[in-house]
Amino acid sequence: MEETFLQSVKYDGEKLYILDQTKLPQVTEFLEINNIEDVWDAIKQLKVRGAPAIGIAAAYGLVLGIKDAPEVDFETFYAYFKKQVDYLATSRPTAVNLFWALKRMDTRNKVESSKPVYEIKRLLEEEAHLIRQEDENVCSSIGENALTLFEDGMTVLTHCNAGGIATARYGTALAPIYLAKERGMDIKVFADETRPLLQGARLTAWELMQAGIDVTLITDSMAAMVMQQGKVQAVIVGCDRVAANGDVANKIGTYSVALLAKAHNLPFYVAAPLSTVDLETKTGDEIPIEERAAEEITAGFGKSTAPEGVKVFNPAFDVTPHHLITAIITEKGIMRGNYSEELPRLFEK
Amino acid sequence: MEETFLQSVKYDGEKLYILDQTKLPQVTEFLEINNIEDVWDAIKQLKVRGAPAIGIAAAYGLVLGIKDAPEVDFETFYAYFKKQVDYLATSRPTAVNLFWALKRMDTRNKVESSKPVYEIKRLLEEEAHLIRQEDENVCSSIGENALTLFEDGMTVLTHCNAGGIATARYGTALAPIYLAKERGMDIKVFADETRPLLQGARLTAWELMQAGIDVTLITDSMAAMVMQQGKVQAVIVGCDRVAANGDVANKIGTYSVALLAKAHNLPFYVAAPLSTVDLETKTGDEIPIEERAAEEITAGFGKSTAPEGVKVFNPAFDVTPHHLITAIITEKGIMRGNYSEELPRLFEK
Repeated sequence: MEETFLQSVKYDGEKLYILDQTKLPQVTEFLEINNIEDVWDAIKQLKVRGAPAIGIAAAYGLVLGIKDAPEVDFETFYAYFKKQVDYLATSRPTAVNLFWALKRMDTRNKVESSKPVYEIKRLLEEEAHLIRQEDENVCSSIGENALTLFEDGMTVLTHCNAGGIATARYGTALAPIYLAKERGMDIKVFADETRPLLQGARLTAWELMQAGIDVTLITDSMAAMVMQQGKVQAVIVGCDRVAANGDVANKIGTYSVALLAKAHNLPFYVAAPLSTVDLETKTGDEIPIEERAAEEITAGFGKSTAPEGVKVFNPAFDVTPHHLITAIITEKGIMRGNYSEELPRLFEK
Repeated sequence: MEETFLQSVKYDGEKLYILDQTKLPQVTEFLEINNIEDVWDAIKQLKVRGAPAIGIAAAYGLVLGIKDAPEVDFETFYAYFKKQVDYLATSRPTAVNLFWALKRMDTRNKVESSKPVYEIKRLLEEEAHLIRQEDENVCSSIGENALTLFEDGMTVLTHCNAGGIATARYGTALAPIYLAKERGMDIKVFADETRPLLQGARLTAWELMQAGIDVTLITDSMAAMVMQQGKVQAVIVGCDRVAANGDVANKIGTYSVALLAKAHNLPFYVAAPLSTVDLETKTGDEIPIEERAAEEITAGFGKSTAPEGVKVFNPAFDVTPHHLITAIITEKGIMRGNYSEELPRLFEK
């Protein structure tokens, strides 16, 4: 297949290619899938991860699942289709985007119910492509907007992985880096390894290297020194959730990096698709923070690195207050401060 | 033997007990040693680590090594003694404190040369005890001074390991915690795991647990959130070197913690024995920073966690500028700012 290092999920009309993220960063392997069972397995086994990528994989999984569906009448076809939907829904019951994508395919199916079944099959494939394309467009637009904040020759620091392999393409925080590369600009990256799960070391460093981008891996504790020495000129991160006042929940350590950026007078940017903006959440205080298992910290590398029974605090996310955020970059534009007023306006456009 | 969890090296007149630090934190094992060869091995194999602890082990190693030395005359004895000195010196040729301790034993030997050899042997054992006791006194004094800054019920955050097992007893940054415990005070600790080598997880958490002190392990990236949530009221760290203006070089990540403490209006304390104060070094800019192997970050725990060939920046230390340091605590007293004037005075007392 052609070079698709930035597309972790890709359908060519016959086969679905899924980057096996469980083998990263040691092995770069694309699964070649032609049946729904293998898609179910890829989602279940976390071979595909990242909310958008899971949704896209599920949509294409359905397309594969209905290839051999009976075409005699809509009712027979729809019953068959529904079985496939219910089956895929069991692959990862906590993945919101999985259900969102299945729901969207179901809705399209119903909308087109008066058409011949062979035509519905084609339209459902079209819908899966649309889901993928729309996510790529969102990422691309975020990249375009973010790129207006960067200059050729800059070096930026990022935390965790808000990259291409979790989305249709480009990612969010990494989108401007990839776009810059496509345009012959030279933007270098420092990647925090991002303890405890090392998404920066395992994923961000990997995908940037794949794309030929100059990336330097550091531990999270080195970001301050890197800034002190003037090695980076900006910070950009992704996010899990943006509250109505602009407070941002993201991977643990993001708040730390935001404070360090502030101390060194560096801009701190958050790349946020509108799907992460939650106006119902007034401030970051209302965002519940998941605490995860102690073993992620005490035995995360295949062997125990801490005393048995040690007390551990392991929050998965932290909240960066809006006043530390220089700009929030969405697919519909850039906001600089005054988030309480600007965020609702994005949904009116 | 009696409870000696805070003493990693202890001599009872016959045997030398050395805590095998290579087995921490999984196994707590004291080596029972009665010959110089096993001391050589313990130093060589890093079973004893930490500058003061190595010096103490070497001094006692000599005591064991001369037990059977001929007592006919001083010349014969001294030749025997010198052989043992030269032998121990080969155990870890880069350890400054090893040579310092051997030199000190040699000097004492020469000073006492007119005495009978059996008496010299006793005085050399006394000298080894003195070396140990003086280090314990330094740590104890730092602890006493630091404790005046703490209150019962406080929780403090520390980075890396400036604890008891690297010294005669008590350590430096952890000394006030141990003294507080001895006095029935309740001071809790958050310990940064301290990537890349995890001294916080492997050593600090371990020794505090051994002493029955309430310790919570976090990744370095969580310190900011812990401060944000008001879980700690102060930070205390050790140091490798203090420049004449009060800039401090210490384990990578210390500068980061200092900035985070500042952002949360928390005091940031440095525990520094006078032996780390270097008035010849004008500022932190003059302190050379060792860069270490990429593998510490990419494959530090028995398996690869980053892409092969990734570029890595791995400084072992960073420099915290004096203006971020609320106080420097030495065995001779506490300095608060104005370090350029106060540091030289310490050496006049």
